[in-house]
Amino acid sequence: MASTTDANLEKYFKYIDDNTAFLIDQLREAVAIPSISADPKYRSEVFKMGEWVKARLEGLGVRVQMVDPGTQELQGQTVQLPPVVLGEYGTDPAKKTVAIYGHYDVQPAIKSDGWDTDPFTLVEAEDGRLIGRGSTDDKGPVIGWILCLEAHQKLGIDIPVNLKFCFEGMEESGSIGLDAIIYDQADKWFKGTDYTCICDNFWLGTTKPGLTYGLRGLSSFAVEVSGPAADLHSGVFGGTVQEPLVALTRLMSTLVDIDGKILIPGIYDQVAEFTEEEGKRYEGLSFKNTDLIRDLKADCVMHEDEADTLKSRWRFPSLSLHGIEGAFYEAGSKTVIPAKVIGKFSIRTVPYMDLDVVNELTIKHLNSEFAKLNSKCKLNAYNLSGGRWWYSSPDHPNYIAASKAVKRVYGTAPELIREGGSIPVTLTFEEAFKTNVVLLSMGRANDGAHSTNEKLDKYNYIEGIKQFGAYWAEIANL
Amino acid sequence: MASTTDANLEKYFKYIDDNTAFLIDQLREAVAIPSISADPKYRSEVFKMGEWVKARLEGLGVRVQMVDPGTQELQGQTVQLPPVVLGEYGTDPAKKTVAIYGHYDVQPAIKSDGWDTDPFTLVEAEDGRLIGRGSTDDKGPVIGWILCLEAHQKLGIDIPVNLKFCFEGMEESGSIGLDAIIYDQADKWFKGTDYTCICDNFWLGTTKPGLTYGLRGLSSFAVEVSGPAADLHSGVFGGTVQEPLVALTRLMSTLVDIDGKILIPGIYDQVAEFTEEEGKRYEGLSFKNTDLIRDLKADCVMHEDEADTLKSRWRFPSLSLHGIEGAFYEAGSKTVIPAKVIGKFSIRTVPYMDLDVVNELTIKHLNSEFAKLNSKCKLNAYNLSGGRWWYSSPDHPNYIAASKAVKRVYGTAPELIREGGSIPVTLTFEEAFKTNVVLLSMGRANDGAHSTNEKLDKYNYIEGIKQFGAYWAEIANL
Repeated sequence: MASTTDANLEKYFKYIDDNTAFLIDQLREAVAIPSISADPKYRSEVFKMGEWVKARLEGLGVRVQMVDPGTQELQGQTVQLPPVVLGEYGTDPAKKTVAIYGHYDVQPAIKSDGWDTDPFTLVEAEDGRLIGRGSTDDKGPVIGWILCLEAHQKLGIDIPVNLKFCFEGMEESGSIGLDAIIYDQADKWFKGTDYTCICDNFWLGTTKPGLTYGLRGLSSFAVEVSGPAADLHSGVFGGTVQEPLVALTRLMSTLVDIDGKILIPGIYDQVAEFTEEEGKRYEGLSFKNTDLIRDLKADCVMHEDEADTLKSRWRFPSLSLHGIEGAFYEAGSKTVIPAKVIGKFSIRTVPYMDLDVVNELTIKHLNSEFAKLNSKCKLNAYNLSGGRWWYSSPDHPNYIAASKAVKRVYGTAPELIREGGSIPVTLTFEEAFKTNVVLLSMGRANDGAHSTNEKLDKYNYIEGIKQFGAYWAEIANL
Repeated sequence: MASTTDANLEKYFKYIDDNTAFLIDQLREAVAIPSISADPKYRSEVFKMGEWVKARLEGLGVRVQMVDPGTQELQGQTVQLPPVVLGEYGTDPAKKTVAIYGHYDVQPAIKSDGWDTDPFTLVEAEDGRLIGRGSTDDKGPVIGWILCLEAHQKLGIDIPVNLKFCFEGMEESGSIGLDAIIYDQADKWFKGTDYTCICDNFWLGTTKPGLTYGLRGLSSFAVEVSGPAADLHSGVFGGTVQEPLVALTRLMSTLVDIDGKILIPGIYDQVAEFTEEEGKRYEGLSFKNTDLIRDLKADCVMHEDEADTLKSRWRFPSLSLHGIEGAFYEAGSKTVIPAKVIGKFSIRTVPYMDLDVVNELTIKHLNSEFAKLNSKCKLNAYNLSGGRWWYSSPDHPNYIAASKAVKRVYGTAPELIREGGSIPVTLTFEEAFKTNVVLLSMGRANDGAHSTNEKLDKYNYIEGIKQFGAYWAEIANL
C-alpha cells in the first residue's frame, strides 16, 4: 500500500510542479472576482464567485448543492445571502470521508488604502509573492482543493478518500446562516463524515509549516452605568451630580492590570493546570518577540520570554478593554456629562473555562466593585455574547495524517500551534459532525490577510496544494 | 432728580403695560426668522435677522455699524460669518455710557425633536408662556432693549444714558470673531464706556429675579495613551501587548472621586477661603434639590443640603470626565485593542485659581500616576483650552443700579447668584473695556434655552423690558 501511495504522490507532486503557471492562472481568475461580502455593492460578485466554484466543481464530476441561507439586513437594504456551496465526490464505503471547509468571499480592498498594485489583479512579484485580495484568505486554499482533485483525475489516480466540500461566501461578514446549514445537513449531506479539515489559517511564522490544535473562546460584556435622564452641561451640573463615567472608569480599572493579569476573583481557578510536558510544546517555536515588536511598531510587549508570549496568546485567558458607548468620542473637547455610559470588554477563554461560570464571576465582580463605590448611579452589567474555546489533541489520527502529509511535502514536521482568536465554525463542525477537526494552513503569518498588499507566497501555494493531496493519502493510510 | 426719574419711570411702565400686544408681536416677528448659526443652510436667515436688528435700530436714530468678522469653515464649506451689529445712541458727555450685549442667533430647532408647536411660530400659551426658539435666548432681551428705547422716544422721555449696543449672530456657535472685534473696537466704537450690561442669562429659579456676579472658568484636558502603531485584534494580541485603554481608565480613575472631590494634589490650595460672611449669601435662595432631582429624573445629586449644591456649582471647582477618543464607541461589541486613546476631561475653576498653575498641577499629577503604572505605553497629557473664571463684587455701583432697578420693577431685591458655567464674553468685555460688567437676566431657570419648547414667560418679558428702563435710570442716578 505504502509504495502505491508513494508512487502516486510522486506523480502528483511532479504534476503540480510542472503546472505552476496554470495553477497560478486559476488563482488569478478567482482573485479577479471582487467577492467582498461586507459591501452590498459587491454582493453580486460574491454570487459570481460562488457560481465559479460551482462550475469548477461540477466540471470535475462533483455533485453540487447550492444552499440558500436567506437574506440579511445590510446598510439599510435587505440583501440575499450568497450560497453555501456543498460538494460531494465519491461515496465508496471502503474509503474514509473527509469534510473540507473554505470560504470564497474576501475582505474589502481599494487601491487607495495603500495597495502597491490593483488588489483584484493578481501580481506575481519577483520575490515569489502572489499579491492580491483573497490570495491567501481564502481563495488560494479553496482553489487548491479543486486543483488537487483535478490533478488526480488528470493523472488517473484514484482519489483515496470520499470528499464533502463546504465553501461559504460570508466568512468575512460573520458567516451569517452557516451554522444552521451545518447543523441541518450534518445527518444529510455530511452523513458519514470521518474527519474534517479547515484551511483558513496560517503558519506561526514565515519559515515552518504549522498545524493548529487550539483556539481561545470569547465572552463579551457590557457595563452600563446610568445617572440622569439626559446628558448634562458640565458648567451647570459639574460638582453637584454624580457622574456615571466616573463610576465606569473606576469599574473598568478593576478588571485587568497593566501586565494583563485578570483581576476577577476565581477566573483562573478553571484554567487547566500547565504541565511540564505541555511546556515542551512551547520550546523552539518559530516565533520571536522582535517580530512582534516590529509588527506593532512599538515595544509594548508584556513578556520578555517568547514562550511566555505564546502561552499568554494561546494557553491563558486574557481580558481586553474595547471602549465606551455613550460618552464623548470625537476630536476636541465638549463640556458634557454623559448620562449613560456602557463600557465594553471581553475575555478570551481557554480550557476548561465554562461560559456560564465566567459570566457569573464577571457580573458578580462588577456588582461587588460597584457596591464599594457607594454611587447613586445605577449599574447594569451583562454578557453580550459568548463562544467556547476549542481544543483538539494533536495526537488524534486526523492530526497524525496531517502531520505526515506536511512532513512528506516540507521535509519537516509541522509546528504544533494554537491561536489566540476564535474560528467559531471549528466548534460547529466538531459538534455537528461529531468528528475531529484539523486546522491545516497554507499561508504564512505575514500574509496580511485583512490588510493591504495581501499575498500568498508561490512556494506556499504550490507546496500547499501538494500537502492537500498528501493529506488525503495519509488519511487513507490510517 | 429722583422725582423726575420716578415720574418718567411710572409713565414708561404704564406704556409698556398698555402695549404688551405690540411688544409680543415684535418678539413674534423676530422668532419667525430661524437664525440658526450652527447650520450653514440657515446662515442666510442669520444675516436676515442681523438686518432686522439693524433696521429697527436705525429706525430709532441709532448710528449702526455692521462689522464683518470674516469667514468660517462649517461642514466642509467656507461660509460668511454674520455681522456684529454695533449701535450708538447719544454722546452726551454729561451722561454715563452703558454698553449692552446680546445675540440674535438661536439654537437649532425642528418640531420633530419634541416641540409641541412649530418652533419658529411664537405661541402665547394660556399659562402665560411665550413659546418659540430664541424667545428667551436671546431674542427677548435683544428686542427688549430696542423696545425700551422706542418707548422712551414715543413718550418723549430723554434717554438718561448714552448707549453702545453690541449684538452678535454667532453666540450659539462659539462667538467666532467676536473677541477680536471687541478688543479692536474698545478704544474706538466703545470708547468712553462706563458700565457694561449683558442680558443672556437666567434667574436661579422661577419666582425671584436675579443678578449674576460670578462665573466659573474652564480648563479642558486631553490624556493621550498610545501603544502599538495600529489597532489590534484582541484574539491575536490579547494578553501579550500592554493595552493603552487599560492605562487610560486607570489614569482617569485618579482624577476625581465618586463624590466630586478632585484628587489632583494642590488643586484646592488656590481656592479662595470660604468666609462666614459669604456663607450668608447661600441662605434662603430660591433653589431646591428636589427641583434638581426632578430635572435629572433621577436622584444622583451629590449633596443633601441645598446650599452645598449651590456652593459646589458656583463657588468650588469641579472635574468632569467627558469621554474617550480613539476607542470603540458604537453599540454592540468589537474585538479591538485600540492603539491610541485620548481621555477628555475638564476642570471648572473658581477664584483665585490660576490657569497656568491648574495646568501644571494637572499634567504633573497625570505624569506621576502614569509613572506608577509602570506601563510600556506612552503618555502625552496636555491642556486643550482654558478660560478664566469671572467674579465681580455685587457691591459695585453697576450692581447697585441693577439691583435698584430690579427692586423697582419686581418689588424685591434680586437674588445674588453665580453660574457654574462660563460666558467668555463677560471676561472679554471686562478686560477690553476695563469696566464693570453686570449680568442682568430676563428669563427663568426653566425656560429651556437650548431645549425643546423654549419659552419666555410673558411676565418676564414685560417686567424685563421695564427693568431695562429702570436700569438706565438708576445708572443715571448713581
